[in-house]
Amino acid sequence: MRTIDWRDDHIVAIDQTRLPHDVRLMDIDTVADLIDAIKRLAIRGAPALGVAGALGAALAAREEPDHLRRQVDALRAARPTAVNLAWGVDRALGRLADGPDAVLVEALAVLEADVRGNRALAARGADWLLERCGDGEVAVQTHCNAGALACVEWGTALGVVRALHERGRLRHVYVGETRPLLQGSRLTAWELANLGVAHTLLVDSAGPSVVVRGLADAVVVGADRIVANGDVVNKIGTFPLAMAAARAGVPFLVAAPESTIDPATPTGAEVEIEIRGAAEVVRVGGESVAPAGTATLNYAFDVTPADLVTAIVTEARIIHPARGDRPA
Amino acid sequence: MRTIDWRDDHIVAIDQTRLPHDVRLMDIDTVADLIDAIKRLAIRGAPALGVAGALGAALAAREEPDHLRRQVDALRAARPTAVNLAWGVDRALGRLADGPDAVLVEALAVLEADVRGNRALAARGADWLLERCGDGEVAVQTHCNAGALACVEWGTALGVVRALHERGRLRHVYVGETRPLLQGSRLTAWELANLGVAHTLLVDSAGPSVVVRGLADAVVVGADRIVANGDVVNKIGTFPLAMAAARAGVPFLVAAPESTIDPATPTGAEVEIEIRGAAEVVRVGGESVAPAGTATLNYAFDVTPADLVTAIVTEARIIHPARGDRPA
Repeated sequence: MRTIDWRDDHIVAIDQTRLPHDVRLMDIDTVADLIDAIKRLAIRGAPALGVAGALGAALAAREEPDHLRRQVDALRAARPTAVNLAWGVDRALGRLADGPDAVLVEALAVLEADVRGNRALAARGADWLLERCGDGEVAVQTHCNAGALACVEWGTALGVVRALHERGRLRHVYVGETRPLLQGSRLTAWELANLGVAHTLLVDSAGPSVVVRGLADAVVVGADRIVANGDVVNKIGTFPLAMAAARAGVPFLVAAPESTIDPATPTGAEVEIEIRGAAEVVRVGGESVAPAGTATLNYAFDVTPADLVTAIVTEARIIHPARGDRPA
Repeated sequence: MRTIDWRDDHIVAIDQTRLPHDVRLMDIDTVADLIDAIKRLAIRGAPALGVAGALGAALAAREEPDHLRRQVDALRAARPTAVNLAWGVDRALGRLADGPDAVLVEALAVLEADVRGNRALAARGADWLLERCGDGEVAVQTHCNAGALACVEWGTALGVVRALHERGRLRHVYVGETRPLLQGSRLTAWELANLGVAHTLLVDSAGPSVVVRGLADAVVVGADRIVANGDVVNKIGTFPLAMAAARAGVPFLVAAPESTIDPATPTGAEVEIEIRGAAEVVRVGGESVAPAGTATLNYAFDVTPADLVTAIVTEARIIHPARGDRPA
């Protein structure tokens, strides 16, 4: 089952808000419904958002020009931080002059390229890690979900993990729960259980301790945006793991498709970091956990400075920002 | 209202598991009930545990010698990481030769000394911070709860915050929610709201970003144990804030009573870190958030190495571990 796909004349996607207890497919045949699914994180993960953007452009391409333009603008802006969403929209819409069918063909090419790209970057990332981590099995710490559920069907950071697992070289995976929306608990633990990979769930603030205590040989995460100097924008909680990895002297590897790289933005300081509502923080599982009216600052992402990023692996290459390599 | 106190012939304490929505007092007149309250974190916070240990010794001192010894051993071991619990037990029990009344008198002296000590260390900590942070108001990041609820009635880290507030020099407090048990959301936000202090709640993994983005001028936390070389054991999530403070060049201040200092333990590596059950991680607010059977590694505390600790303030002195000062 693919996380997001095109069936007949519409998008089909897993509703990720219902995992891990309920695997339910959504049929999406309007751009408005797609935007709603993206905003409530029923579809999430930078690579999946790229594919959603491309398929959404195919939905919009059926509309009259005025309506089309309004829909496309709203879709591009549905979430601000991941660069892939707008990239996917623009990529598919680039064929609009050839008619809606050409837009759809391009969108399906984006989808298939995600699958192939994941496999390629996962193999390259696994090679790179095994070169650095000796002859035995490797234990990995990850964060949030950069698995099949963040992509179409394989995964980026979790794709590297799967490649290690298939080679019999994976000992264990430590997973941060990823507050506030618990993508680590709900999605990554679910994927790893389905794959039969040994794993342990942590509260996010325990991740750095696991790294410096030597339980993890490497930290492997995805990315929502990688800017020109090698700064990496990813789910809130990534930066503390990178500091711990640097302190422990273990590799900090970012696995992401080339579409995540934003050469137009010089450093992480210029990236708009999405700030989400208070309800995600002050309510947990429907229960109020803070005094009524408590204010929050709910950053969805953080910036890991390039000096802490040992390597970035894409479907095309390896970049070493901590050594001074630049992605763009 | 005191967090923990002695009334007539028994202990009275706020049940902290019911906050912030319900302020309920527990009457505790047996050591078994006290141990239960400590294990389920109805009474928590290193200084309060010291007082609980002393008052618990007064309860035990009424028993026959055999029974007394078994109760005292169980009480000392109710939680392993904070040194204050066993310290309080031993301190009060040192007067056992003079009879149970003498044990109670000593326990009440521990309780009153906590109140006085909090005030002294809070004033010293506020002086120290204001010296370093210029003439204006100061914004502080804290973690977990080192407030009145962790002590008898004033607070250590939050005592420093209160002292700044009383002097009109506090701009804002950023509070980490403190998964898994959410002492930041449930207890610290509640205390700050009651005090009329402007504050913002964060998921724990956002704390380091708040520090490096320059929103907080200092990080101020309590401690569960401070060992001879200046390593600080405190609630899980403290270490990432210390790394961020070092990176941002802002002070990382630990506020704790002298009873938290454990001169017999050379470094943090020798401290037993309590590992709590999976239920705290995989269930939130009564709701299952991970696949059934997911394994966890639920460290209750982490170790902040001395090189990241700008200063420790106690009721008696200031120590600067990052400069090479040793507490013992």
